[in-house]
Amino acid sequence: MSEQLFTALEGGSITTPKGFTSGGLHCGLKKTDRNDLAAILCEVPATAAAVYTTNVFQAAPLKVTRESLADGTLQAIVVNSGNANACTGGQGEADAYEMRAAAARALGVKEQDVAVASTGVIGELLKMECVRGGIAALPEKLDGGSAGAEEFCQAILTTDLVKKESCVEVLVGGVTVTIAGAAKGSGMIHPNMATMLGFMTTDAAIAGEDLLRLLRTATNTTFNMITVDGDTSTNDMLVTMASGLAGNEPLTRLHPDWDAFAAAFTHVCRVLAKAIARDGEGATKLIEVQISGAVHDEAAAAIAKTVVGSSLVKSAIFGADANWGRVIAAVGRAGVPVSPENVNIALGDIAVLKGSRPVAFDEEKALHYLQKSDTVLITVALSDGDGQATAWGCDLTYDYVRINAAYRT
Amino acid sequence: MSEQLFTALEGGSITTPKGFTSGGLHCGLKKTDRNDLAAILCEVPATAAAVYTTNVFQAAPLKVTRESLADGTLQAIVVNSGNANACTGGQGEADAYEMRAAAARALGVKEQDVAVASTGVIGELLKMECVRGGIAALPEKLDGGSAGAEEFCQAILTTDLVKKESCVEVLVGGVTVTIAGAAKGSGMIHPNMATMLGFMTTDAAIAGEDLLRLLRTATNTTFNMITVDGDTSTNDMLVTMASGLAGNEPLTRLHPDWDAFAAAFTHVCRVLAKAIARDGEGATKLIEVQISGAVHDEAAAAIAKTVVGSSLVKSAIFGADANWGRVIAAVGRAGVPVSPENVNIALGDIAVLKGSRPVAFDEEKALHYLQKSDTVLITVALSDGDGQATAWGCDLTYDYVRINAAYRT
Repeated sequence: MSEQLFTALEGGSITTPKGFTSGGLHCGLKKTDRNDLAAILCEVPATAAAVYTTNVFQAAPLKVTRESLADGTLQAIVVNSGNANACTGGQGEADAYEMRAAAARALGVKEQDVAVASTGVIGELLKMECVRGGIAALPEKLDGGSAGAEEFCQAILTTDLVKKESCVEVLVGGVTVTIAGAAKGSGMIHPNMATMLGFMTTDAAIAGEDLLRLLRTATNTTFNMITVDGDTSTNDMLVTMASGLAGNEPLTRLHPDWDAFAAAFTHVCRVLAKAIARDGEGATKLIEVQISGAVHDEAAAAIAKTVVGSSLVKSAIFGADANWGRVIAAVGRAGVPVSPENVNIALGDIAVLKGSRPVAFDEEKALHYLQKSDTVLITVALSDGDGQATAWGCDLTYDYVRINAAYRT
Repeated sequence: MSEQLFTALEGGSITTPKGFTSGGLHCGLKKTDRNDLAAILCEVPATAAAVYTTNVFQAAPLKVTRESLADGTLQAIVVNSGNANACTGGQGEADAYEMRAAAARALGVKEQDVAVASTGVIGELLKMECVRGGIAALPEKLDGGSAGAEEFCQAILTTDLVKKESCVEVLVGGVTVTIAGAAKGSGMIHPNMATMLGFMTTDAAIAGEDLLRLLRTATNTTFNMITVDGDTSTNDMLVTMASGLAGNEPLTRLHPDWDAFAAAFTHVCRVLAKAIARDGEGATKLIEVQISGAVHDEAAAAIAKTVVGSSLVKSAIFGADANWGRVIAAVGRAGVPVSPENVNIALGDIAVLKGSRPVAFDEEKALHYLQKSDTVLITVALSDGDGQATAWGCDLTYDYVRINAAYRT
C-alpha cells in the first residue's frame, strides 16, 4: 500500500489542490430540495483525462465530454443529478451541448474546456429551464474552501447516503503536491465503470499522456474492482484535472517521485471506490474479497469479482451466516482455471476451509465477526500461481430491493 | 413451438412412461419431516444420458454418476435433498459410492447402473445412518402411479415452493411414446446448469448418442436460458432414462418422427425450466425476455440472459415499475455488438422504446400489466441481424434476501 509515500489529509477536499473552486445548488431536477447541479472550476486550463462506461448505450453528456477532452485540457466540469440524460436522442445531445455552452458562459471559460456529467433516471429529457437557471446561479456559489466542496459533493448524490471524498499530499521533487477526489455511487455499480461519477483534482504539473495512463491503471485496481449489483450504467465517468499550480517539476513516468505520486493517486481512487461499495444501495457492510494463488492477476480479479458479486454470498453476509459453500461455489464458476483440491478460505481471521476441506470453526465467533464488522474480509488462497487481486462490494439487503422496486415512482 | 406435434398429458408424471416406478420418504436429512430421499427405478436397463454443472467444484455424487453413465446405461437414480455432499473430500466420495451401492442392493440392480444426485447445504458430511436406513426402506415406497411420483417430486425440493413436472405424448412411427420430467430449483440458478436437479423418463427406444445430443441441444435453449440469481451450483445435473418399452422403431436423428420427438422432449425441458424460474427463491413473477434482431443467436442469448439476470430489472419488475432504462442498460452491457440507434422495447404489448427513443406510454396500463401478470414479457427488437433467443427469470424480492440471509441457520 506504500502509505508512507504520501499523507492522507483529513478534511481535505477537491478544492484543496491549488487552483480549484467548486459549488452546488438545487435547480429543480430532484423532487426534494437536495442539491442537483454543481461545478468544479480551475483558475487555469488544466491537464485533464477521463475514463468512461463500457456500456454500448452511452449517455449524451459522455459524447460532449469526450469532445471537450479531445485536446487533453479542461477548465471546468458541470454536473447534474436527478436525470441521466441517457436514451434521449438528438434532443438529449442538444441539451448536453447547451449545458456545456451555458456553463462556459457563466464561468468565463471556453466551451471546449468544459466537461458535462449527468446521473439519475434514464430516458427522460432534462428540464432545461431548471438547468439554465441553475447554471446562471452557479458562479456565485463557487468557493475554494470546504463549503463549496461540500455543496458539490451533496449535489452529485442520488441514492447515496453519504458523500465520498479523499485527499492526500505527496512530495514531488521536494514540493508538496495535493491530490483529491469526490465520487458518487450507488446502484448500477459494476466493474468497468458503473453508475458512478468520479472527479479528481490535483495541483501537480503532469504530462497529459502520463495522467491518462495513470488514471487507467489506477482505475483497473480500484473503481473497476467494485460491484454493487452487477449492472453497468450508461453514464459513468471519472474525470481528473491537474492545474499544475503546485509548482513541482513536471511529472512523467521517469520522474524519481513518480511512484510516490502514482501511489497517492491510486490511494485516492481506492478510498473513493471502497466508499462507493460501502454505500451501495441498501448496504449495511463493506465486503472485501482478497484472492491469492490464482494462475495470474486477471484470473484472480475475475474470481474476486465473481465472489463479491454473488447474490448468495451477499445475502449470507447480510444474514451474518458463515456460509462459505457459497464462496467456493462462486470461485468455481468464475470461468478461470482453479485446482479444486487445495483451496483455503477464511472469514476475517477465521479459517473455514483448508485444503478444500471444511474446518470445524467456532460458529459463535464467526457470527460475532460477521455481525459486528463494518468490513467483512473474505480471503481465498488458491494454489495455482502468483495471481492476486482484491475486490469490494456490499451485502444484499431488503433495502436494496425496496430502493430498486420503486426507484422511478 | 410445434405444439401440434405432441400432446401435453395433464396429470402425467415421471412414472407415466412405461417401465418406471418412483417414490420418496423422509430419512432425517432435512430438519422438518419433509421427504429428503427418493429414487426412480426402471424395469430394464435404460439408455441414459446426462448433463452436469460447469462449476469447477463438482460435488461427489457427480463423479459417481459420471462413472455409472460411462456405458450409457442406467436402471435407477437415487437422490437426496438437505445436503449437497459437496466439498466433502474423500469421505464425501466414499459416502456417494456407498449411496450407490446401497441403492443397487436395495433395488436389485447393478451398481454401475445407478446414478446418485444430491442437493442442499455445501460442506457438511452426509448423515449416512439416515441415508442407509432410508435407502433400505425405499423399495416398498416405489410405485408406478402418481403417488410414487408425487413422493419423488416432494423429496427433491429444497427451498422450492411447488413441485415441477411435465409429461407429453408423441407418435413415433404410429406408436405412442411418452416423455416426462421432474425438476427442482430454486436458488443458485444460472445458465449452464444451476442448482437444479432434473430427471427425465421416456419409454422411447432411442440410440444413446442421439439421446445425449438431444439432451444437450434441448438444455441449451431451456435450462441454460434461466437464471434466478446468477449463481451456479456444484451439484446440478439433468439425467434422462429411456426404457425403450413403448415398442417404437428405434429413434435416431434420421427417423421421420425425430423432429416431433425432439420438439416433445424440448417442450418438457422448457416447461420444467420455466417452472424453476417462476419458483425462484422469493419470486412473485416469471420474467420472460425475448430478443430478436441480434447479430446472431449466441448474441441474442447473451443479451436475454443479461437482461433477465439484472438485479435492477428484477427489482423494478417486483415493484411493477416500467423502468425500461434498466432494460436498455442491461442490453448495453451484455458484451455483444448492438447498434444503439434503433432499439425497440415493449413490456407485454406496451411499447416503451421505439427507435431508441422513449414512447409516451400509458403509465396506468403499464402498472396494471406489471402488477397483474404472473408472467411479465419483455421484448427487445434490435436491428443487427437475425439472432433471437428467449430467457426466463424471476423478480428480486424481499423474500429472496430473507431466504438467503439465513439459509444455513
